[in-house]
Amino acid sequence: MSATREALFEGATRIDAWPGDARATAYGDGLFETMRVHRGVVPWADAHRARLEAGAKRLGLSLPARESVDAAAAGLFDDGGDGVLKLLVSRGGGGRGYAPIADTAPLWRLSRHALPAPARAGGLVLRWCDLRLSAQPALAGMKHCNRLEQVLARAEWQDAGIDEGLLCDVDGHVIGATSANVFVLHGTRWTTPALDRCGVAGVCRAFVLGATGAVEARVSPEDIGTADAVLLCNAVRGILPVARLDARAWAMHPAVAGLQRDLARAHPAFPLPQELA
Amino acid sequence: MSATREALFEGATRIDAWPGDARATAYGDGLFETMRVHRGVVPWADAHRARLEAGAKRLGLSLPARESVDAAAAGLFDDGGDGVLKLLVSRGGGGRGYAPIADTAPLWRLSRHALPAPARAGGLVLRWCDLRLSAQPALAGMKHCNRLEQVLARAEWQDAGIDEGLLCDVDGHVIGATSANVFVLHGTRWTTPALDRCGVAGVCRAFVLGATGAVEARVSPEDIGTADAVLLCNAVRGILPVARLDARAWAMHPAVAGLQRDLARAHPAFPLPQELA
Repeated sequence: MSATREALFEGATRIDAWPGDARATAYGDGLFETMRVHRGVVPWADAHRARLEAGAKRLGLSLPARESVDAAAAGLFDDGGDGVLKLLVSRGGGGRGYAPIADTAPLWRLSRHALPAPARAGGLVLRWCDLRLSAQPALAGMKHCNRLEQVLARAEWQDAGIDEGLLCDVDGHVIGATSANVFVLHGTRWTTPALDRCGVAGVCRAFVLGATGAVEARVSPEDIGTADAVLLCNAVRGILPVARLDARAWAMHPAVAGLQRDLARAHPAFPLPQELA
Repeated sequence: MSATREALFEGATRIDAWPGDARATAYGDGLFETMRVHRGVVPWADAHRARLEAGAKRLGLSLPARESVDAAAAGLFDDGGDGVLKLLVSRGGGGRGYAPIADTAPLWRLSRHALPAPARAGGLVLRWCDLRLSAQPALAGMKHCNRLEQVLARAEWQDAGIDEGLLCDVDGHVIGATSANVFVLHGTRWTTPALDRCGVAGVCRAFVLGATGAVEARVSPEDIGTADAVLLCNAVRGILPVARLDARAWAMHPAVAGLQRDLARAHPAFPLPQELA
């Protein structure tokens, strides 16, 4: 295991491999951020850090200093390239037992990944997942490392013709896709699922909330069926129009194209709208 | 990272440190077993393996061959000593993204730990946890690595005078302690919470079920208050009488002492009953 001592925050340690007893491994006791990098720059860098800090406060978890993470990120992208940056912070301490040990320095890992393949031309094809998300207000909204529900949901299909799966919670409310948030348009009114009981409050979701004035509310599967437009979004891929969900099909909606243009203007990492097939 | 190639099961790899992108670390995408070892022998070794296999089947996760794990365990305890053995199996594959990659060999780690301190003389002192467990039938009963609920629940108290915390689910049913199952006695009838929606189906719980003929049912906090006796159990500590929960106190009950004697007879790792204070 190679380790770099972190001078700026009480011994937070950047690692490449995790110690055998790392709490992120044992219990999923950690947080992560997955960030787009465009020509060496992270769109929404402040928002990613803010979400990480909010999650760390709720979990009582220490973070590495932002300066250290930023310096490491600059090192990984010193070619000024494009890609994905993943930060994972594990609560410090090891051994056995659930009790967090106070004042232990966290471990963190920063890694560079290739961009995902471009989104399907013509818009995404979705399915409904069978798995229902459990309701846990104490963890809702956070990007923590307890992600077995998403793993099981994503394992429901292997068909390469399906891009994403939509998930409902145990009460049948739509929450989002396995790795994206969802917005639905009725007339001129955008709605996105409230994430007070489950789900991850995405950084691109915050952008779309701001751009649309969307209402955060309970969303039913019927609300999806009756929508004039549906989009998915996340911080790596931006805003993605949905073309199909089972038998329901949508043509490209000018409101979605407008949002994609707004996003491309704010963050040139993200593409201008395509016409849907 | 030191790694031993596993010849017996399609390349399952025993590791000491986890690769940076291990799925157990990224998503809690793994299973674990925590086992008592007494003079080099694991009580309930078959039951631990059976639970692991049942969980792996539900998660679609490959396991290392039992022979390899047993051989490694024998190596760790070749002094014929006492302690705790922890096995953690992570789904194989790395990179980014929730989709499990088919036919990837798992990673596994086996570690030796000291026995915990003996249980409080006179019986355990419990508290109620504020956190409510979420209901997720797809994960219920398994000893998987998504344990943030237990971490948060255990972080609710620092008072060394409290031994364990009892948890209810979102509907107010008692499920168990943070790291033990619970049984309650009314007259001659034992009951233990049904674990079809959350909780971990412990190996010692199965022993107590068999020894008592307990009913698996919904248990309310009131059922605890009106119980003639309450016990906690897990595979490391065996059967532990409860002496107090908030203002409610219990004297040692002969039925609990009888169960402890039965367990000590079956597995000499576990102690004979003490008198409660």
